[in-house]
Amino acid sequence: MISLENIYQAAGVLKGVSRVTDLIEVTKLGTHDALYLKCENLQKTGSFKLRGAYYKISQLSADEAAAGIIACSAGNHAQGVALAAAKRGIDCTIVMPDGAPISKVEATRSLGAEVVLVPSSYDDAFSYARELQAQTGATFIHPFNDYAVMEGQATIGLEILNQLEGVDAIVAPIGGGGLISGVAYAIKKLNPAIKIYGVQASGAASMAESVHEHKICSTSSVTTFADGIAVRTPGDLTFPLVEQYVDEVVTVSEDEIATAILGLMEKEKLVAEGAGAASVAAVMFGKVPTAGKKTVCIVSGGNIDVNILSRVITRGLVTSGRNATLQIALEDKPGQLVGVSTIISQCGGNVVNVHYSGSDPSMAINSCFLTIGLETRDFDQIREIETALRDAGFHLVEKSTPNCNP
Amino acid sequence: MISLENIYQAAGVLKGVSRVTDLIEVTKLGTHDALYLKCENLQKTGSFKLRGAYYKISQLSADEAAAGIIACSAGNHAQGVALAAAKRGIDCTIVMPDGAPISKVEATRSLGAEVVLVPSSYDDAFSYARELQAQTGATFIHPFNDYAVMEGQATIGLEILNQLEGVDAIVAPIGGGGLISGVAYAIKKLNPAIKIYGVQASGAASMAESVHEHKICSTSSVTTFADGIAVRTPGDLTFPLVEQYVDEVVTVSEDEIATAILGLMEKEKLVAEGAGAASVAAVMFGKVPTAGKKTVCIVSGGNIDVNILSRVITRGLVTSGRNATLQIALEDKPGQLVGVSTIISQCGGNVVNVHYSGSDPSMAINSCFLTIGLETRDFDQIREIETALRDAGFHLVEKSTPNCNP
Repeated sequence: MISLENIYQAAGVLKGVSRVTDLIEVTKLGTHDALYLKCENLQKTGSFKLRGAYYKISQLSADEAAAGIIACSAGNHAQGVALAAAKRGIDCTIVMPDGAPISKVEATRSLGAEVVLVPSSYDDAFSYARELQAQTGATFIHPFNDYAVMEGQATIGLEILNQLEGVDAIVAPIGGGGLISGVAYAIKKLNPAIKIYGVQASGAASMAESVHEHKICSTSSVTTFADGIAVRTPGDLTFPLVEQYVDEVVTVSEDEIATAILGLMEKEKLVAEGAGAASVAAVMFGKVPTAGKKTVCIVSGGNIDVNILSRVITRGLVTSGRNATLQIALEDKPGQLVGVSTIISQCGGNVVNVHYSGSDPSMAINSCFLTIGLETRDFDQIREIETALRDAGFHLVEKSTPNCNP
Repeated sequence: MISLENIYQAAGVLKGVSRVTDLIEVTKLGTHDALYLKCENLQKTGSFKLRGAYYKISQLSADEAAAGIIACSAGNHAQGVALAAAKRGIDCTIVMPDGAPISKVEATRSLGAEVVLVPSSYDDAFSYARELQAQTGATFIHPFNDYAVMEGQATIGLEILNQLEGVDAIVAPIGGGGLISGVAYAIKKLNPAIKIYGVQASGAASMAESVHEHKICSTSSVTTFADGIAVRTPGDLTFPLVEQYVDEVVTVSEDEIATAILGLMEKEKLVAEGAGAASVAAVMFGKVPTAGKKTVCIVSGGNIDVNILSRVITRGLVTSGRNATLQIALEDKPGQLVGVSTIISQCGGNVVNVHYSGSDPSMAINSCFLTIGLETRDFDQIREIETALRDAGFHLVEKSTPNCNP
């Protein structure tokens, strides 16, 4: 069973191994209450997972360690286990689904682990890891359903209490429940007045459903780009702890997570992955009560694929009026492009791409489409450009996308 | 004159105002020596400028403060001065060029400053601010050419010495020289064995040239996206300090800065602006000697426009083989797109956009161009896709862009 004594022991074991990550006060994310970020995205390996993995591995018997360790992960747990094993000088095999980003595979390899890539999904990789474990007798390190792992993650709770006085609430993401069960247990034992809120992606809300149904529920599929919390079934060790010690489990949408990622980048200069930004999304979108409270969001990790980050930014720019695409139906005669581009330039818009097409069979034979991508300041500027174009007689095609202006 | 006594006084004045920003050890930026980041991008207002502005304002006489203050800035200094003035309850006018990003204008306003937008460039805004100052008698707060400002920035040096033992070298960006002259003075007075390196953008290298020529030199223009260090002329108070206390001033290219920004985001989960990443670029690209040394890079700020950040990422993805554009000349007959897309899919490439064009008059009348944008893992995968397409008889058009494979 989990214990406060072991959590204090874990804090000692982790000294000099994991970083005491910064707790940063936030003033610019649009909340007017006292909000703080516990920056586990700045943890070694880019996520909190190192804590639990390292403490777990430190507790192995000599025989268990000599047998080597094995784990299955598409990302953060892989790197945490690999670094922990390297620091303890233990052989380490990580089974990863072959769809894992090459950057994460390479990061895990560079930490000294042997990486076995398995075709298909995480579930297949997990089965294969279990098989391999049975064959080799290596020690399996579960990503969340293990008390020592939870105790390692719980050290985040101790650090928060050390770093800030008068905490009213802590908000943490939930995948399998390893992080929050450890933190909630530690906090409630030390100060039961502090509220603990868990956050799941609405497309992967198995813990929320389990808490609601008072029994462990699995989702048939998970659909979220927050891969760090894309877990189909809560652990049978974590679930009872969440039931007992977590005050409420809420969900956030993909767009809310994306908005939080963009806000963290732009306002707080921090890169968070989807799971890492979920807690902040819950606060930004009023999913948990923060009025008049001192709230700490655990930003659990920052390992987001840059391609995905790039898409999140692009989407965020569009939804905040700083990128726009105009489609204009033109008569096919000289001087039209000059007219359009002059107006855009006069309104201060910055053209980033132009596409000119006359081949749409739905159009009149002497007309064509001009599609212009713009960098803009805000929705007002977009409307100003649109109005100026209409006033000059240009025909703007209405977009089918919803109006994103809040 | 600058003094160590005042720098210690500044540290006291700044207690509880500026953050003691985190010093983070870096292991993943491709350097194998001990490298640390002093994260002033995580400072309140997103840059170190708050330190100098606040200390300067704290030193004003009652009359000077009562007259109100005025400053000119396109960005970081504006926010630093505005927050400092708000905290001291002093009226504050900030003159900004009207091309400044709306986000910075709004951030400055939201800190309580009156913002005056002046058409045209920074130089025009500066002249106007000086004019306004003469009319109103307000106290002008210079962004760098002021000993109190330098003394405020120098507190970064004190913090580094407190946070890390055995520092061998500190690398800092140079615009006007306010940051580095303060830090270099403090460090050399306390431990002259520590090397101080300054970094400028090669398109805005007035201090590098001045040091080389042993006199203050201006550049006729500045061309860098690192707007925080885009300064045409060093200060007459900062230059002699740089000459005396800075060991070497080096320059980095725009692409080197962009690569450092991407590296900081991807590996260290930190958003840095161009000026903020310049010090890291200097280390990554071997501009300063780091072998066997314990080096601290000052990441001076994180206020980068998201549109520019988005472009930096896109460029970085292309130069690292994770985005590619293929142009294929096709015969204009059915089934060609199926063939191409099947091959790309089999090689694991992810198509993100497709453009199909038959209108190029330079082409045979029965052929057309297919342009495909792809997300890829690395250059090997791009080559694999290209080879598979060629083997299947498709004609890839050679790109005119240079091969970016390192």
